[in-house]
Amino acid sequence: MTQVKAEDSIDQLRARIQQFVQERDWEQFHTPKNLAMAMIVEAAEVVEHFQWDSAQESVTMDEARKTEIGHELADTFVYLLRIAEVCGIDLIAATNTKIGLNALKYPVEKARGSNAKYTAYEE
Amino acid sequence: MTQVKAEDSIDQLRARIQQFVQERDWEQFHTPKNLAMAMIVEAAEVVEHFQWDSAQESVTMDEARKTEIGHELADTFVYLLRIAEVCGIDLIAATNTKIGLNALKYPVEKARGSNAKYTAYEE
Amino acid sequence: MTQVKAEDSIDQLRARIQQFVQERDWEQFHTPKNLAMAMIVEAAEVVEHFQWDSAQESVTMDEARKTEIGHELADTFVYLLRIAEVCGIDLIAATNTKIGLNALKYPVEKARGSNAKYTAYEE
Amino acid sequence: MTQVKAEDSIDQLRARIQQFVQERDWEQFHTPKNLAMAMIVEAAEVVEHFQWDSAQESVTMDEARKTEIGHELADTFVYLLRIAEVCGIDLIAATNTKIGLNALKYPVEKARGSNAKYTAYEE
Repeated sequence: MTQVKAEDSIDQLRARIQQFVQERDWEQFHTPKNLAMAMIVEAAEVVEHFQWDSAQESVTMDEARKTEIGHELADTFVYLLRIAEVCGIDLIAATNTKIGLNALKYPVEKARGSNAKYTAYEE
Repeated sequence: MTQVKAEDSIDQLRARIQQFVQERDWEQFHTPKNLAMAMIVEAAEVVEHFQWDSAQESVTMDEARKTEIGHELADTFVYLLRIAEVCGIDLIAATNTKIGLNALKYPVEKARGSNAKYTAYEE
Repeated sequence: MTQVKAEDSIDQLRARIQQFVQERDWEQFHTPKNLAMAMIVEAAEVVEHFQWDSAQESVTMDEARKTEIGHELADTFVYLLRIAEVCGIDLIAATNTKIGLNALKYPVEKARGSNAKYTAYEE
Repeated sequence: MTQVKAEDSIDQLRARIQQFVQERDWEQFHTPKNLAMAMIVEAAEVVEHFQWDSAQESVTMDEARKTEIGHELADTFVYLLRIAEVCGIDLIAATNTKIGLNALKYPVEKARGSNAKYTAYEE
């Protein structure tokens, strides 16, 4: 589905994270179960940044805030990549497949501008 | 379904998701606050797959299970990419920066094989 | 800290849940780790109800919605009570203690009307 | 710190939390949407305590750990009670109703000792 190249940014990240984990002998802790927990803990740190914000406040970004949120997104991403890695899932291919499924489920003409339809997407 | 031209797999995905959202006029719902909520809902669907598993069961994968988990990882990834997009954060750069910070915080010689040190990582 | 009586609603619930779990021989799955995962999965189902809502939409309740959200809150509560149970924690006493600590940390005169202070509460 | 008169421990807590929030003029931030976010952030702090634990480690408790986990459970409980409060949901009644529904869905003879059945419970 995708032809990733040696210089592809995701492949570079995966390799770098793999090395990081191996150097620390942390593979023993990286079961899918533990990594799923770690990922949601990091996702919650993203949520925490926005929990008391109004819709308007949530879109207001300065550089300091972007840096902080970037760190939380990064931690979430690292665990997401690790889960895919240890489960033997090609994250890019899986995401392309899923977007295709979502497009079939939410035809443009029906879904347009509706958060009622969009909410149904989650169910 | 989408004609993306970028070489890098992440850039291709970002462009494809952007088009998906625009076609459905869903940008109005994609505040960072709402997207952070959507992301953690998807992360919880990953967690759900492993919640009653023993450590051993959590690493047992067949193709059906890989497909299902791949779908949940994909949904999490889509929202992660969207948050980065609407916040103006370069996810790859932020992740490389964060891995560098983590490497300084968890020197190999101290962190090796220890989940006590590793737990401290989260704090 | 609290003198709970036999007819206390929390004690009744705890006893009922304990019986439910024992009858199904599910205690073997109820480690704190597994229960924490189950609780956050249920908490995410609460989040899902509100993820695309505006602030205004999120406060709009009819009976059907109250019933659905009530079910998700109930599932979250069941796992919260179970974690406390298997960890040997008195949830009511712990909550009273924590509210006392929060009151010291957020003196009325400083915290009043401020979500900036309030955000700091989470950190 | 608070003079609550209700007999029932949950009613006492609800009244105490209500007073805490009012004194700080924080009701304006307590939409169901914001509270659902705050609750999952606290639930994630519970998850964090167990994320790298083996099943065996997760059941090992000393007093210090019980105190820490008790604080996180307390924070989760406070937001759970607040969501119920602002949505006009009777949490105890909703939980009793839900346990009844779960009992019908998971008959003892079928569910006994099975985490396969139990997993299906979540779906």
